[in-house]
Formats: sequence, C-alpha cells, structure tokens
Amino acid sequence: MPPDRLALVGTGLIGASVGLAAKRIGLREVVGWDADGDSLGLAAERGAVDAAAGSLEEAVEGAELVLVATPVASLQETVRAVLAAGSGPTVSDVGSTKGGLCGSVAERGRFIGGHPVCGSEARGPEHASAELFEGATWFLTPVAETEPERYKLLHGFVASLGAIPVAIDPAAHDRLMAVTSHLPHALANLILNHAGSVRVNGHEPLATAGGSLRDMTRVAGANPRIWIDIFLDNAEELRSSLAEHRRRVEDLERALAAGDAGWLARWIGEAAVNRRTLLDEAYRDVGALQRVRVHVPDRPGVLSGITQALGAEQINIEDFELQHMSPERGGTLSVLVSGEDEARRAAALLEAQGYSVIVSPAFEDE
Amino acid sequence: MPPDRLALVGTGLIGASVGLAAKRIGLREVVGWDADGDSLGLAAERGAVDAAAGSLEEAVEGAELVLVATPVASLQETVRAVLAAGSGPTVSDVGSTKGGLCGSVAERGRFIGGHPVCGSEARGPEHASAELFEGATWFLTPVAETEPERYKLLHGFVASLGAIPVAIDPAAHDRLMAVTSHLPHALANLILNHAGSVRVNGHEPLATAGGSLRDMTRVAGANPRIWIDIFLDNAEELRSSLAEHRRRVEDLERALAAGDAGWLARWIGEAAVNRRTLLDEAYRDVGALQRVRVHVPDRPGVLSGITQALGAEQINIEDFELQHMSPERGGTLSVLVSGEDEARRAAALLEAQGYSVIVSPAFEDE
Repeated sequence: MPPDRLALVGTGLIGASVGLAAKRIGLREVVGWDADGDSLGLAAERGAVDAAAGSLEEAVEGAELVLVATPVASLQETVRAVLAAGSGPTVSDVGSTKGGLCGSVAERGRFIGGHPVCGSEARGPEHASAELFEGATWFLTPVAETEPERYKLLHGFVASLGAIPVAIDPAAHDRLMAVTSHLPHALANLILNHAGSVRVNGHEPLATAGGSLRDMTRVAGANPRIWIDIFLDNAEELRSSLAEHRRRVEDLERALAAGDAGWLARWIGEAAVNRRTLLDEAYRDVGALQRVRVHVPDRPGVLSGITQALGAEQINIEDFELQHMSPERGGTLSVLVSGEDEARRAAALLEAQGYSVIVSPAFEDE
Repeated sequence: MPPDRLALVGTGLIGASVGLAAKRIGLREVVGWDADGDSLGLAAERGAVDAAAGSLEEAVEGAELVLVATPVASLQETVRAVLAAGSGPTVSDVGSTKGGLCGSVAERGRFIGGHPVCGSEARGPEHASAELFEGATWFLTPVAETEPERYKLLHGFVASLGAIPVAIDPAAHDRLMAVTSHLPHALANLILNHAGSVRVNGHEPLATAGGSLRDMTRVAGANPRIWIDIFLDNAEELRSSLAEHRRRVEDLERALAAGDAGWLARWIGEAAVNRRTLLDEAYRDVGALQRVRVHVPDRPGVLSGITQALGAEQINIEDFELQHMSPERGGTLSVLVSGEDEARRAAALLEAQGYSVIVSPAFEDE
C-alpha cells in the first residue's frame, strides 16, 4: 500500500522525480515545499506536486511519509526541522552519504536514511522524470531502533517507484560508496588534471589522448556544488580509500621496477575476472557478447540506417556506442550483440550497406 | 606517391589492416611475412597481402617500405633482422613504445619509429579492417639522422591510409603515452581490483557499483599479452607518472583532512576546464551539446524506432550511448545533439513515441 499523502521537502531533480513517479503509480496527494520558490513553482507546474505548501511545517502536516531531498550540506538541519514539525510521519532522505546524518538524528525509530543511486548530471525540477529510478539501486539504512511498519512502508514505496531497495548499515553504505563511487570520481579528476598539466615537448597530452582517457574521465569536473559536499561529508572513508589506492599504486611501481611480468599477468588476470563480475550484473551471458564495429560518417540518418537494418532482422542490440571523433572524420560505432551467429548476421547486414565491419569477442577470457 | 612495393613483417590485426588499407588506395604490391603461418595464410586469404613470402628476407627484398608489425617484445630483434636483410628499404614499425627501440637501432637514417593510436581489443588478421586508421593519430619519431626523403615517403604513406601523422621525439612519445594511455590503463586495473577485493558487511561492491565505475574500467583486464610488454617496455616513464599520481592523491587527502572546500572547488573547476579541452577535439561546439535521455526496454527494434525518428527529422546525433542495465529492467539511452532547439525537437519526437525524456546540457560550465 503506497502512503496516502507524501510530502517532498526539496523539489529539485530528485524530489520532483519522486513526485512524478509517485503520481504515476496513483499516489493520492503529493505536497511539496522548497526554500527556492521558483523550484517549487516549477515542480507544481510539471505535476510533480499536487500542492505547493507555504512552509516546511505545512508540507509535513498530515503526511504519512516525508522525503527530504535537499542538498547534502543542509540535510541534517532540514531533517531535524521535519522531525520537529510533526511526530506522525515516517521520514527519509535521498542524500549520497549516510553515516553523519543517521548518527545525528535523535528519533531513530521513524527516521530511515535513504540513497537512490541514479545519474545526477542534470539538476532542477525541469529535468525531473518519472522514470529516473527505474531499475536503480535505492539504499535504505534501517537501524536497530527502526520501527518495522515504517521500514515496510518506505521499502514498499521505493520499490513502487521502480527502484530496487537494498538495506545496508549507514557506515557500511559510506564505505561502499567511497570505493565504488567517490574514489572513481576523485580519480577521474586527478588523472585529468595530471594529463592537463603536463607539456611534453610542446605536445598537449589532452589533444592527442585516445578513447581510454576520455572514457575514464567522463564524470570529471561534474557538479561542484554537489560533489564538494559529498567529498567533505564522506572525507574519512574517502581518505582511507585513497590511502589504500596509494598502497596499490606502490605495489605496481615495485613490480615495474623489478620487471616482474608474472605479477603483471596475475594483476591483469584479476582485473579481467573483476570486470566480468561487474558486467555479469548487466548482461545475460557476458561470454557470448560480440562487438561489431564500423566506421561511420558524421551525418543525420546514418545511425537509423544501421539500427533499422538490425531491428528489422530482429537482432537485439545489447549495447550501442558511438565514439564521435570529429565532424570531418566521423566516428566509430560499436554494437554489442549476443552470440557469434547474431554477430555474423549483423556484420552481413552492415557489409551489405557498404560498411567495413570488424567483429570481435567483447570480453575475452585469458 | 605511395611506395610501389610494401612489405609487412607481421600480419596480425595491425599489419593486415595496413595491407587492406594499402590495397584500397591502389598500392601495387604488398608482400607479407609472419612467423605464424596461419596468420600469414589468413592475411593472404583476406587480400591483405598479394604474396606470402617464404622468409623475412624474401619479403624485404625489393620493397621500398617495410612495416614491422610484430608484438612489442620481439620488435627490436625483428627490426634488426629487417635492416640486415637489405640496405634499400625505409623501415618503420607500429609498436606502442618508441624510446627503447629507436635507441637500439644503429641505422638511424632509414629506420623511423611509428605508432598508430587505434583500438586494439581485437587481435589477428581475421579482425583486420581497411578503415582501422581512419582519423587516428599515427605518431612518427624521426631523429636528427633521419633521411628527409624517407620521412616524406613514410609520412605520405601513413596519411594515405587515413591516419594523421604526428612527428614526435621517441622519448617524448613514451612520456606522452605514459600519461595519456598507460597510466589511465593501469589505474583502470588498480581501481577495479581495489573495488573487487573489498567486502563491506557482506555487500559485494561490484554488484552495487554505478555507471562511473563501469565507464572507468572499460579497458581493465584487457589483452595481457599486449599490455604486459607495454607496461614493462615503458616501465620507467610509467613509474614516474605513477609517483606523480601518488603525490596528487596525497594533495587531495590533505585537502579532505583539512576540510578545504576552496581547494576542492578549484580542483573540480580545473578538471572541468580540462574535460572541455579534451572534448573540444571531438565536437563542433561543446557548449551547445545537449543530452537527451530516455529509459528503454531491452528488445529488438527499440533503438531503430528512436534513431529512425531522429534521422527522418534530420536531427544529427553527435553521440549515442546505450547503458544496458539488465534484460528485465532495460537500459538508459543517452543521445547528444547540438543546440537547445535540436534537443527540444528530439525530445518532442521521443515523447510522441511514449518515452519520458530528460534533457540537460551535456557539459556544464561552473
């Protein structure tokens, strides 16, 4: 049973997306409040909230569930205000770190921390979508004092939005995010600033960089307003991940100094196994995946010609990427299909369109 | 003027691709030799070489240009053998490191190092393509003793294959590759093995990882046979890049320990500028790029419906990515188009197909 009345405190991208998703599943009333009147107005206009409250207290009054979706920096204060405004509702949040917040809350029975893991490159209710949480992990951090009925309500609500609720201890959550999200994000910045600061005989490394640097730094430089708070809020766990990272870098330096090919082989082999584990989540049968590559010109209609041909033959595209090189030179299109037969059929179709096709196993075991 | 007779010593992916590309531009005769008879036979079968020589010496005889395309580990030895086999031809190679090889060659007038920067996830002549070098940087390492006419021949040949020749000092090449390719590649392995080795309260980090870890580790675990040699051959430059990387990690740790938000803001700002520089190479007008995102089910024909609709309206897709989540949950499709008007048209077309669309600037300045 979804709650009858949901209050959203903070109606930016995440808050407004929760509102849209909640209305889509038929939740009766969503009340919103945001310190930024424009954001609140826009959320109402887009139908993410049925009513724009005049104050935080007004929004909370009568709600069964309150979701606090303000920036990490003001979360503690806002959650405290929400808990003070009414003793009835179950309260949760959507912040990217959980330890500090959950530790600071006195009412541990009815506050349960939360964190939907979804793309955050956009901001504001204008980019909100009812489908933002579709298939996303949504961490929940119940503690010993959590009232079971409240956890059940929150768990059911999150699942009804299309997300996959995963219960985790608040401190463990932050440790996990340090390794899987905050460390990679920090390394993207580090490596890009490193490459950007080097001048090699007048050559600008960023101008000659290949695809691997581009892939690895996709998130570099993103959203300082969000990321400064996340880094500082999870500083302790992130520092310990960075220190461990340095130790691992030193191991590699030692192996290189010793010319230890065996160490390198084991290290690359371990990475191959880990990569496979990472991809097993996403694909039916990773081992069967074949990569079909063609070079395409940069003009409208090229992609549709290709996807249409594959679609007409019922070839399912597991993954699809266009690496755009330049307007003059075009780009490389990479399509993943499952099985060698599918790959052969795809290659034949593309060759019939005049493309020169390269097929290879997407992930090789060795 | 292309050379009349080209010899390929090594007919794997790169050698055979050079052969196919050379035949496409009308080069009269390509002679190939490979220690692996199967590889040579397949290259001949695919038309990458006109004649399969019986020995390295036979291949080199009468050639104007010899390209050595054997693995990095045997390059020095093979290049020496090629130079000894005949005093006429200009000799080059396609290895990923240049300092050691170029330093070891006595005949500095007619050997000129080379390195085409192109995807290498596939191996063998069966995956060769005439278009492999289209738009790719092809480093050439002339030295003081290089004979100008020979450099001109090689430069023109590389350009005629569709590549962009870039002259660079051998040592500078290795320093550049350490920062832009070998360090990113090593970090992909390091970070994935780090995440893979951590257990947080029974949670498997690789199972809950988001897209940033997947993006950053795309090259992790790849081609040990190729990468062990590259890492060892460029060990000195890579070690110095790794040491500099550790210093940069320590700077970040200090800023986090001090809670220095100003440092973090400057650091993220610098990364944003560098990211922009990296992307300026690839796109007409990075600032105008808009990201159009939709959630799509996992079944044939979905992509063609979308690309066809965009193509029919002459909306040019600058970049296109399907992040596949799972067979049950589908994936997120991300399309980059240039300009807000194009983005609005694209969004309207997709909304007309029943998708819920999120539009946002692809790269934000701030």
